[in-house]
Amino acid sequence: MVFGADAGIGVQAREVLAPRADQVLVQVAAAGCNRADLLQRDGRYPAPAGVPSDIPGLEFSGTVVQVGELAHGLRVGDRVMGIYGGGAQAQYLLVPESICVPVPEGLDVVDAGALPEAFFTAYEALVEQGGLRRGARVLVNAVGSGVGTALVQLARALGAQVYGTTRTQAKLEQCEALGLSGGLVVEEGESPATTRERLVALAGGEFDLAVDLLGGSHLSLLLAALAPQGTVVSLGFIAAQQASLDLATIIARRLRVVGTSLRGRPNHEKAVLARRITRDLLPLFASGELRPVVDRRFPLEEAAAAYARMEESRNFGKILLLPGAPVEGKSHDETARGR
Amino acid sequence: MVFGADAGIGVQAREVLAPRADQVLVQVAAAGCNRADLLQRDGRYPAPAGVPSDIPGLEFSGTVVQVGELAHGLRVGDRVMGIYGGGAQAQYLLVPESICVPVPEGLDVVDAGALPEAFFTAYEALVEQGGLRRGARVLVNAVGSGVGTALVQLARALGAQVYGTTRTQAKLEQCEALGLSGGLVVEEGESPATTRERLVALAGGEFDLAVDLLGGSHLSLLLAALAPQGTVVSLGFIAAQQASLDLATIIARRLRVVGTSLRGRPNHEKAVLARRITRDLLPLFASGELRPVVDRRFPLEEAAAAYARMEESRNFGKILLLPGAPVEGKSHDETARGR
Repeated sequence: MVFGADAGIGVQAREVLAPRADQVLVQVAAAGCNRADLLQRDGRYPAPAGVPSDIPGLEFSGTVVQVGELAHGLRVGDRVMGIYGGGAQAQYLLVPESICVPVPEGLDVVDAGALPEAFFTAYEALVEQGGLRRGARVLVNAVGSGVGTALVQLARALGAQVYGTTRTQAKLEQCEALGLSGGLVVEEGESPATTRERLVALAGGEFDLAVDLLGGSHLSLLLAALAPQGTVVSLGFIAAQQASLDLATIIARRLRVVGTSLRGRPNHEKAVLARRITRDLLPLFASGELRPVVDRRFPLEEAAAAYARMEESRNFGKILLLPGAPVEGKSHDETARGR
Repeated sequence: MVFGADAGIGVQAREVLAPRADQVLVQVAAAGCNRADLLQRDGRYPAPAGVPSDIPGLEFSGTVVQVGELAHGLRVGDRVMGIYGGGAQAQYLLVPESICVPVPEGLDVVDAGALPEAFFTAYEALVEQGGLRRGARVLVNAVGSGVGTALVQLARALGAQVYGTTRTQAKLEQCEALGLSGGLVVEEGESPATTRERLVALAGGEFDLAVDLLGGSHLSLLLAALAPQGTVVSLGFIAAQQASLDLATIIARRLRVVGTSLRGRPNHEKAVLARRITRDLLPLFASGELRPVVDRRFPLEEAAAAYARMEESRNFGKILLLPGAPVEGKSHDETARGR
């Protein structure tokens, strides 16, 4: 699938390249949709160097169908998933083998496509940036989003109490089923001070760690709800790109704001993260403590509808694009739809 | 000295209390002035619980003149210095012994009064919050201030290259004598983008760590000059209390803003910091690599002039208040000027 000049997105045939050196060719089973795809479509989030600039898709699950001559860890037929800088919303994806992690036993390979961005991001935010400890109070906004549902599950699995905000009561109830300790639907026009008091009362105290997906005044609200020495991890700015910091509070209460993202990292950093994910996170899927939350599956041809659903925040969990079976009668390194 | 209802500040007699438990009574040789004193005077930075609310003074040097029955580390006659929540701009100060550190050999006890806030803050900001490493590029604004001059010296002593901004050429030259690798006088009306380019060109690259004393747009400028994964440590907001964050940059470049302060910490945290200071920082004074920068000494009675000098940023380094000799003919636990 490619970003086009006219309609925004559409399917287009591209040459499938053979893997070289340490690359593997993955036949994509599913590729998640992300808010970043919308930013990229609108020209606000260009692809990093080395990935296709016009094929979206930051995460994938699938099966290895061909390996480069220096790839020594993966074999044809292995079920893999991962995050990559772009190009995953296609039938085939060429990636370095080191950024792949195995699809855990017992997990459907299509459902696995809903896992990487949401859970890798949640792991990196909570554990590596946030230093989450058992018993901590965690606050998440946009809790019904793909990464929101992953944050809830992972924080709970790691022994934290997790609270959240969203705009619809139905999403809150679905989150409670995933382990949310409590949540609020923020009322239109409610003052930030009131929301803060409601959240602190709900949790029985201020928060040690917060995760912001919205930006703007939402980030300020999270900061105001932190306990001394608390951290906000900033992952997105769906609502507003600029946020205001009250430095008197930041300094006196010794707060931190930490921005983080996975996409722009060099492959060697992604490989390091993939190893930690394999060691620390994947066992929680094998044991059933975590599960990817799939909102809806769309064939690749219906990407425009999938994007619209995400843009309107109608999803709970992840929207998946399924490239479907490869075109019959052609070998992998000849023309196929997508790349 | 006390904050009064009328003139702002003045000297007033207070009872000198005897040390109890693990307290020691310090006869103050010198007490530094800090921007926070001005905030406190103006009702914007109330004293923490357990310290006099109307006697300013966040740091001291002096001599132990009496010890509580549970104080087992210090003896009468020991030269000590430290930070405390307030009350240091007085002839006598009562503090827990655990927050005191020794005045290094060879350092004048009055000059030592210029050391604690500036260098403890610099140590905590650079080492504990900023994770400073040898070879790092560091950027400091308000580089001619008390903490600015300490940041320059300490960053340099720890193997970093340190750059800074100030408003007067004379202060820049004085900072270069302290180890500043390069600096800029920021021109009135210069665009932040231009200042950023000039700074990065001066340093030969973006900065790993920055320290903000000014707040507002100054903090935004520091953030814009950071290398990926860089940190701004926020210590003050002399210029403006609100700062705007561009979240797209914070997230894509994985930047951090860390607020920190010493004053509001509980005494046990101050005690932990005092031990680290004694171990890691004080040897650099004994060896002569670091030295407190004293701008001017004022008798306690001239505190109003001292405060005005600080408020107008006319100082280079620290302004000291000297309480002078105790009132003759009275014992320490009777009335004396100050407390």
